[in-house]
This record gives sequence, C-alpha cells and structure tokens, in this order.
Amino acid sequence: MAKDLQPRREFIRHAVIAASLPLLSGSILAPRPPRQRRPLGFALVGLGSLSRNQLAPALQRTTNCRLAGIVTGSPEKVAPWQQQYGIPDRSVYSYETMERMSENADIDVVYVVTPNALHAEHTIKAARAGKHVLCEKPMEVSTERCQAMIDACRTAGKQLAIAYRCQFEPHHLECVRLARERVLGDVRVVQASFGFPLGNRPQWRLDPSLAGGGPLLDVGIYTLQTARMLAGEPVSITALETRPDPAAVEEAIFFTLTFPGGVIAQCSTSYRTPMNAFTAFAERGSFGMNPAYNYGGNRGWRSDGAPLSFPQIDQFAAEMDDFADCIATGRPTRVPGEEGLRDVRILLAAYESARTDRTLRLDP
Amino acid sequence: MAKDLQPRREFIRHAVIAASLPLLSGSILAPRPPRQRRPLGFALVGLGSLSRNQLAPALQRTTNCRLAGIVTGSPEKVAPWQQQYGIPDRSVYSYETMERMSENADIDVVYVVTPNALHAEHTIKAARAGKHVLCEKPMEVSTERCQAMIDACRTAGKQLAIAYRCQFEPHHLECVRLARERVLGDVRVVQASFGFPLGNRPQWRLDPSLAGGGPLLDVGIYTLQTARMLAGEPVSITALETRPDPAAVEEAIFFTLTFPGGVIAQCSTSYRTPMNAFTAFAERGSFGMNPAYNYGGNRGWRSDGAPLSFPQIDQFAAEMDDFADCIATGRPTRVPGEEGLRDVRILLAAYESARTDRTLRLDP
Repeated sequence: MAKDLQPRREFIRHAVIAASLPLLSGSILAPRPPRQRRPLGFALVGLGSLSRNQLAPALQRTTNCRLAGIVTGSPEKVAPWQQQYGIPDRSVYSYETMERMSENADIDVVYVVTPNALHAEHTIKAARAGKHVLCEKPMEVSTERCQAMIDACRTAGKQLAIAYRCQFEPHHLECVRLARERVLGDVRVVQASFGFPLGNRPQWRLDPSLAGGGPLLDVGIYTLQTARMLAGEPVSITALETRPDPAAVEEAIFFTLTFPGGVIAQCSTSYRTPMNAFTAFAERGSFGMNPAYNYGGNRGWRSDGAPLSFPQIDQFAAEMDDFADCIATGRPTRVPGEEGLRDVRILLAAYESARTDRTLRLDP
Repeated sequence: MAKDLQPRREFIRHAVIAASLPLLSGSILAPRPPRQRRPLGFALVGLGSLSRNQLAPALQRTTNCRLAGIVTGSPEKVAPWQQQYGIPDRSVYSYETMERMSENADIDVVYVVTPNALHAEHTIKAARAGKHVLCEKPMEVSTERCQAMIDACRTAGKQLAIAYRCQFEPHHLECVRLARERVLGDVRVVQASFGFPLGNRPQWRLDPSLAGGGPLLDVGIYTLQTARMLAGEPVSITALETRPDPAAVEEAIFFTLTFPGGVIAQCSTSYRTPMNAFTAFAERGSFGMNPAYNYGGNRGWRSDGAPLSFPQIDQFAAEMDDFADCIATGRPTRVPGEEGLRDVRILLAAYESARTDRTLRLDP
C-alpha cells in the first residue's frame, strides 16, 4: 500500500457521499471486565519512565492483573523494583534471558515498553516463551516487523494487543458513540493535534535507529487513532513535515487524511509545540476534547452544550484489565496487532508523502 | 505568484527558525475613532441579506457614519428602505445610474455588498464617481480585477478598504496581541475552520460566474485572515478539495499554509459542515476562539486559564467608523485593497494546488 501515486482528486470526486462509519476491531464499548479468580501476572519489559510512573502504579489499580515480573537492561534498577513491588528473584530477567520466562508460570502476559525499534524483538521473544503480549505504541518501525510480531504470536497461540489506552478512556469512547450514532449528524471534519516540547536531553526518542521516527510515531499516532475512531478508514494521505536536520527525526509533521464521502481529518504533531486536543465537526454541531490525550484530566465538550464528562479513570489499568479479560475468556482484543500494523502503515505513508510531496492512496 | 512548483521540503528545511511576527497592513490596535463633526454618508450597493440584516442596522450604531444612499437592482426594495431609513429620492440609484453619485455630496463612501464577481465593476464605478470604497470580502474573483480596483481608487484619489470585520473584533485583536507579543511563546501551529450548511436554495453563492468559487472565497477567507494575523505571511500552500460536481463550486476545501521557521496553519471550510473556531498553538500554551467568526457571541480562551473575554461589539459598525476616521484624518486603513488582493492571490493558489495536487510556493 501507499505506493500507488495517483492524483487525489480522482478518488475524492468519485467518493460516495454516504459516510462510512468507523468500524475498528472488536467491541469498543464493552463493559468493564468482572473480577476473575486469579489475577494474571504481567511482566514489564523495559523499566523506563512509563513503566515506573504509569504502568507499575496502574497495575496496583487493576482488578485482574498483578505485577509479577520485570525485564531490564539496567541492573541497578532491579533491587528498587523488587523491593517496592515484591518481585521474587526468579521473575527478574534481562533482555538476553527473558525467553526463560517459559518456565515461569507466574507470568502470563509480557508488556513491551522498550524503544519502538525493539518491540518486535521483545514481542517475538515473549511469544516464543509462551506469553501473551501487550505492546506499547507504535507497534514497530516497519510493517514487516509488525507482521512478524503478529505471526509470532499467532504461531504461539497467544494474544497480541497494542496499548492504545485512549480506546479505553470514557470521553474518547463517548466521542466514538457520538460519531457512530450520528448524534450530531455525520462527522465530516476531524482535527486532532498532539505534540509536546521534547527538549534536547539525549534520549532514545531522538535516535532514529531506536525510535524509527519522531513525534509522528510517538504521539502523532494518537491523532491518527482519533481520526480512525471517528471517521473510519482513510483512503489517502497528504503530509508535510518540518525537519531542520535532515539526519534527525522530524520536528513536526502535519497530515491530511481523506475518507470515503469527502470526510477529512487534519492531524498535527510536534516535538516543539504543546498541542493536545481534537475536534470533530459533524453536520449539526461539533464535539471534542481539550485536553484530549493526557493520562488524566482530559475534558470533553459538545457544541450543543450537552455534557461530555465522565469520571477520570486509570487508562492503563483499564487497558490491562481488558486484555486480561480477553485472555481469560478468549474474547478478541479491540486493539489487536492488526490495528497496530494498520497505523504503522499509514504513518510510514505520511513520511513518504512528505518526502515525495505527493498525495498517496491508502489501500483498505 | 503561485506558479512556481517546487518540492516543499526545500523551503521548509531551509526556513529560518526565527518566527516572523505578523505584520499586516496598518495598525491593528488603533484606538476607536473619536466622534467627528459631520458623519460620513454611506451608500450601500446591493440590498441583500447582509445589507438588510447587518449593515443598515450597524450604520445606526456608528459614531461617524450614516446611511445616506442605496444602490439596488430590485426596484421593489426601494420604497421600504427609503421609508425605514429616510433616504431621499436623489440618493437612490440603480447599478446603471450609480455613477451619477458624483453629483451627490451626501454620499462620501460606497459600501459594495454585491456578489463577488461584481465587486470590481461597482468599486470602479464608485471611484469614478469620486467616492471612497469599502468592499465586502472576498475583494474579487481574480487578481487582475483586484488590481483594477486598487488602480481605480488610486487614480480617483480615494481610499479603498476591504470589509474584514474580524480585524476590528476585540477577541481577535487580543489573539493578535498574544501572537505578536509572544505571550505564550511563538505561535507554531494555527488551526482555523469556518463553514456552514448552505443548503440547496438557489442563490448567487452557488453560481460560479457570480461567486468565483465556493466556501473558500466566501468564508474560508476568514480562516486565511486568522492564519495571516497570527502567523504572518505564508510561503507555501497545499490544498485538497471535495467537489462532487466538477462544474459546481467546491463543497469543501482544506489547505495547509507554511510560514518561515516551520510555522504551519491548517485551514478548512465547507458549505456542508458547520465549523467556526480557531486555535493557535504556541510554545508555552494555546489560545483561540470558539465560536470565532459570528457577528456576535464569539468567545475566546487561553490554555493557561487567563481570561480572553471582551464586550461584544458591532463589528460592522467598528469597521465603518474606522474607515470614516481614516477618510477624515488621512490615516491609511488597516484593511486596504492590497490586503484583499493578497488574500485572493492565496485563495486562488489553493484552488490551483487542489487541482494540480501540488504544493505551491507563495511569493512574498
């Protein structure tokens, strides 16, 4: 896909007027999972900021999960984590030893939280160790690696989910409902923006070999998710980037997606500018969130003044509990590897569009 | 301009980092004009909805203007207007007779409110009759006609202003101040959207020969104004349109502008979807308006919670009073013909970009 260069007006003009409703994988509006007999054991792979500040605390708030193991390349992190979370020696691994998890019945799920370009390696190791895998977004930095992850989990007979936390956040889910049920009419235009000032502190996000890209893969992916959740599957992409240093990741990138029927999404992301909002313009009004993508404190709004307000939840806890429920019941996750692969494909098309100054068609 | 096709990455990468501050014509933050000895007489050319519902009432609220004459092609409108506003027979004209205004000392200013593609004809007639001209946006439907209007007014020694009411609206002006004074840091991304469901009722807006374009020229021009007021002069444009009927005006159009230093604006407009908002994302926060472009009831916001709220004003009255002050004092208007010409040039480049699927460079 994304190789077929053709003038965009052709498929825009030919597009049917009937809007396509978003149909993401799985049931987005599933109820919270009930408590189960035995919480599933999660091992965190990569003990960086997200694991320390979000995931480990979130695991304490889950109903059906518990922090059972850790995998790290930083030996100095082991003792504090073991102490704080009561993790036994036999559930502590390095990236080299993590395949020995196959012998560890305490660990049911591996949560991959390493830099983007290591996701395939760690996911495949986990699958080969017989574990289900929850993998941070973006799924990987190439579609081939994404496919290899899907294949490895399928071969192992294990579930694979991508950690799209917003698909478990009630304001986002309400916006999806407003779109699907056409509460304010068909959604015609989506604008979504997520960026933050990264600063110059050395980190893997600025290393193309580990990150695979800049803000687009890191947080622009949220705006793509919003666009797809509200407007369905895009048929073309036109992107434009700011890249002061051609050898570095982009500073900012802006992409326009078209959908059947002339529906449009304008997305923007940046490592320089704080942006954190989306708006859906429908035929009889608009709705959105501002801020939209925080771990907590997000706020929804509707142009008709009707409330769009829900209790704040721990999105990571909800995501992990849902995955645990999928594993326990055999229900397919709403955020499978195929969903992650689709996003990576579109995001890589954004880079190609920006590089070639072309609108690219996206295959269904 | 807008003919020079070149890969956009070239000038984005080469762009300097220092943001260019918006420098529109004239002083945007001028104080309200003082009352003058003799209110200037305005003649409205075209007695459609805007004249009837907005401009004639606004003239009653001005300090330095009065409704002194009318020009119409609809004889049945004459009596009610004369009666309601006390307009004498000698100040009533048709489009064919309006040049006789040269003999009418009661009329100082002609306000052109006819369909877009008639603006040049009526402006030039007014200038030749020795009147100053205030012309509705868009200025005209071609750059040649815009230039002819500028030339005619210059030859006549009369001022020409384009009716950009938002340049007199206090929330908009405060947003310009926030941008220029970098109150929340440099503005890096602007998103602006203005659209409305036009319906299918026959009207000049849907007639390409009278309108010269669709929502882009009609209301998209406001989003361009916002982008230029907040981010300066664009250096490229990439546009994409929805045009279900190739022989008709576009249903919707979406354009991305780049500015020096990697600053971006994403604009959207539609005759199908209600949209009425803008957001400026700066380096330390964001601000905007929602709604942004109504005649009244617009609301501003800042991400830092500081107020962005001003009394509602009659934007048309402010615009006319300012023009009257310019005429009385010789001060140049902040919204001269050159400003209108610049916008028309960029908007026509949007159509060309959408038609050719190319990013177009915009000359300064």
